[in-house]
Amino acid sequence: MPIVDMLWSGWGDPERAERLPAAVTGLLRELLGVHAEPAPPVKLAEIEPPTARPVAGILAEVVGEEQVRTDAESRIRHTRGKSTPDLLRLRAGDASTAPDAVVLPGSHEEVAEVLSRCAAHRIAVVPFGGGTSVVGGLTPEAGDFTGVIALDLRRLDRLVSVDTISRTATLQTGMRAPRAEELLNEQGYTLGHFPQSFEWASIGGFAAARSAGQASAGYGRFDEMVLGLTLATPRGTIEAGRSPRSAAGPDLRQLVLGSEGAFGVITDVTVRIRPLPETHAYEGWLFPSLSEGVTAVRALAQDGPLPTVLRLSDETETMIGLARPAELGAHQGGGGCLAVCGYDGTAAEVAERQAKVRAVLESLGGVHQGEEPGRSWLHGRFAAPYLRDGLLDVGVFVDTLETAGFWSNLSRLYDAVRLTLAHELSSSVVMCHVSHVYPSGASLYFTVVTAQGEDPVERWRRAKAAVSDAIIEAGGTISHHHGVGVDHRDWFAREAGSLGVEALRAVKDRLDPDGIMNPGVLLPRS
Amino acid sequence: MPIVDMLWSGWGDPERAERLPAAVTGLLRELLGVHAEPAPPVKLAEIEPPTARPVAGILAEVVGEEQVRTDAESRIRHTRGKSTPDLLRLRAGDASTAPDAVVLPGSHEEVAEVLSRCAAHRIAVVPFGGGTSVVGGLTPEAGDFTGVIALDLRRLDRLVSVDTISRTATLQTGMRAPRAEELLNEQGYTLGHFPQSFEWASIGGFAAARSAGQASAGYGRFDEMVLGLTLATPRGTIEAGRSPRSAAGPDLRQLVLGSEGAFGVITDVTVRIRPLPETHAYEGWLFPSLSEGVTAVRALAQDGPLPTVLRLSDETETMIGLARPAELGAHQGGGGCLAVCGYDGTAAEVAERQAKVRAVLESLGGVHQGEEPGRSWLHGRFAAPYLRDGLLDVGVFVDTLETAGFWSNLSRLYDAVRLTLAHELSSSVVMCHVSHVYPSGASLYFTVVTAQGEDPVERWRRAKAAVSDAIIEAGGTISHHHGVGVDHRDWFAREAGSLGVEALRAVKDRLDPDGIMNPGVLLPRS
Repeated sequence: MPIVDMLWSGWGDPERAERLPAAVTGLLRELLGVHAEPAPPVKLAEIEPPTARPVAGILAEVVGEEQVRTDAESRIRHTRGKSTPDLLRLRAGDASTAPDAVVLPGSHEEVAEVLSRCAAHRIAVVPFGGGTSVVGGLTPEAGDFTGVIALDLRRLDRLVSVDTISRTATLQTGMRAPRAEELLNEQGYTLGHFPQSFEWASIGGFAAARSAGQASAGYGRFDEMVLGLTLATPRGTIEAGRSPRSAAGPDLRQLVLGSEGAFGVITDVTVRIRPLPETHAYEGWLFPSLSEGVTAVRALAQDGPLPTVLRLSDETETMIGLARPAELGAHQGGGGCLAVCGYDGTAAEVAERQAKVRAVLESLGGVHQGEEPGRSWLHGRFAAPYLRDGLLDVGVFVDTLETAGFWSNLSRLYDAVRLTLAHELSSSVVMCHVSHVYPSGASLYFTVVTAQGEDPVERWRRAKAAVSDAIIEAGGTISHHHGVGVDHRDWFAREAGSLGVEALRAVKDRLDPDGIMNPGVLLPRS
Repeated sequence: MPIVDMLWSGWGDPERAERLPAAVTGLLRELLGVHAEPAPPVKLAEIEPPTARPVAGILAEVVGEEQVRTDAESRIRHTRGKSTPDLLRLRAGDASTAPDAVVLPGSHEEVAEVLSRCAAHRIAVVPFGGGTSVVGGLTPEAGDFTGVIALDLRRLDRLVSVDTISRTATLQTGMRAPRAEELLNEQGYTLGHFPQSFEWASIGGFAAARSAGQASAGYGRFDEMVLGLTLATPRGTIEAGRSPRSAAGPDLRQLVLGSEGAFGVITDVTVRIRPLPETHAYEGWLFPSLSEGVTAVRALAQDGPLPTVLRLSDETETMIGLARPAELGAHQGGGGCLAVCGYDGTAAEVAERQAKVRAVLESLGGVHQGEEPGRSWLHGRFAAPYLRDGLLDVGVFVDTLETAGFWSNLSRLYDAVRLTLAHELSSSVVMCHVSHVYPSGASLYFTVVTAQGEDPVERWRRAKAAVSDAIIEAGGTISHHHGVGVDHRDWFAREAGSLGVEALRAVKDRLDPDGIMNPGVLLPRS
């Protein structure tokens, strides 16, 4: 299946770009004092990446000439990821960090050989799946290398095997998530992994960055689904995962998951699969306040039963209607906090679970809102990044950030983020939802909207640094599911502590002694 | 609470040692051709450990003189663990690997300082919790060090805090499991972790060796319960775990869990706790064959509902009645495979779950056996190691081994182990049960009984090597919950692969550059 290229300057399928509804423009004027001013991107053809350094020939010997791209468009399409600063830089025509070449290996062996050659020639390697990183995971610090390549894994797109007895599947990691889902669906199975990036992200990206999907309450996080993996490193291959769980030493799978290309390239994963659910049900619940809503979702997380999807918006997000991005502006007004619950399963099991959830939520102050808010969320679940492009076009800045913590610390974390953003960004709207729940805690996902103003990238850099400080100081993790990349590296170092970072650095030094793998991502350059 | 010392030459409370029932002696005569011949241990007072090297003074400066023991009995009580070869050696009076001193630190800071001093003086350190390792986890290869200490953590026995909102507790790691359970029970909570070693094992041992308890189907493995931990290493401290889950790099908790003292000493853990269940229910099920029983427990693991306890004995174990060790010999006879199901929860929830399990198991050929086999299992759940002492006394050799694999590979693993043992050990009985289940696979727990004969340690060493080869060749893990220690190290290296071992070695070299931490355990000496 050929892969559609994502909009180079923004998100998603260019055919599906939409104009902002008038209601949104009105809302922004009211809330932010932004007057919609066009801020369109430059033309792709006008961007000139730096002169490519001569790395292509060395790697064409491994993958074939037709699998090494050095044209400007290919290089620009592999420049940075999809964070708002990434987009703003590219929209302004800045392709200064473009790779010298895009290399498309066709097998694990070719990946391994590319890494070996790159180590020998001191060429930095940026593993590239769907290109959807929002944390600078595709922005290496590689000025002192002889070149930089984007290692685009799209040709590693096979469903290698399905084990219906063990309910596992082995997938190559360049496969995009919708294709994986399609192939598994054909055999009656689902992965059940639907992050907001689903339509574009790759299986390898999910693994390398510890992705968590919208149905994590039912299907778990991606790092919990991975039962086996193969990692190509400049010094050889690691294969891990002979059994679901083991006491044979530290879990090597968990050392590779989250390594973000800094140790090597994950070339295949074996993941848990589940039978396609017979039915899906969705519903909305309204709580008088965030604190009552949190108490209710905590009750489900700790004592059950858990819906398959569970998210709870705060008052602001509920008011603005961001839980239903495809219909933004149509539902604003009204107080309280909207929760969306989704259920996958057999008809009987879903009905039973839904009834039990209803009893819990009603006893804790929830008011059933019927199916509509749930279906509306479902319809718009992948739409928010499209909306961002529309906002950027009219001079509005929008970005997201997220953290997680234990239940007893959650309101402190929530307040710390909101107070810091309010202090740093005058005239902004900050919305939040509880996006993933666990028995001991939950994640908080924030959306920040403000006017672009002068130098929005620098303004956001300062605000993001302050809010990252606040997260660490309030005891949260610097990322629940976006990852570390370059953007979160300094705060990850505080979270892991100097000896924790040293331990990971030791692993990197052993697997990648020349430091070619995604330099500066996850760990500082040594 | 003072800690009762375990029987030095065997298992458990010396007051509770029991004679073998006549039925067992008869059974052994019939099955193994063993004629019960007394093979009692030497007297403790007759054992002479090697002359202690002078390490005590250096460490008394840190922990105080009264917390450094160099008397023969203390040293013998910290010699090796509780595997059958460990016991046979000690019963024969061999204390050649006794530590030079037993050191009892009282705080994380004292542990850290002891490690620092030991590194400076090249003294090997063996972290010692409950002393229940059955894989050589307490048997360092430390001949070239200036001394060896057992670092007995029993004074690190505080319940540091309970967070009832997040349902977590922070425990020091020298605390024994029954005490932890008692303190949590007082506050209305349980850890739900009941491995066979429960009565003697420590919280730190559970973490360091990735323990899995008998109620893992309901409460999870210990490595899944750990949300935070503190590791003292010779080069400083690592603290990990700010949130239930995170995408901030590889999970450092999972790098420490399973490290078996080779990276440092885990001084506290924060673990998930649950409300004490209102009720417990137990029941037995009989299946015509192991294959039908496996299909049935797989159905529960994959489609639910899961009992809290779920174990399935093979035909031999069912015939001999080892699922009920306290009543061994009373239930033999009859064919088929016995499964034990246990349920913790509210009365209503247990009744509902039990009814659903019944429907699944009956549809798959299970015949309900009532409560008795379940209650009988419960009564004897910690008794098997006592039974071993009784068998050793009469000249019978008994040991256990375990592995895990994916469901589609489970019968291959089962056959490989049984065929190898049958080939290696003439006149033996091999029993097995499925001890832990996951959606994608399960663990197999084998008990081997044979006559001691001449040089039982060497005979078993050869058989164990052959069966370990067979496990690795059949695609299983070398240990599902016992760990690696010294005994499984060579097979762990095959499982992890040379680059996997190098990655862990790199971590060890960075955290423990002098190699003093449990040398030879987990990783080969460098």
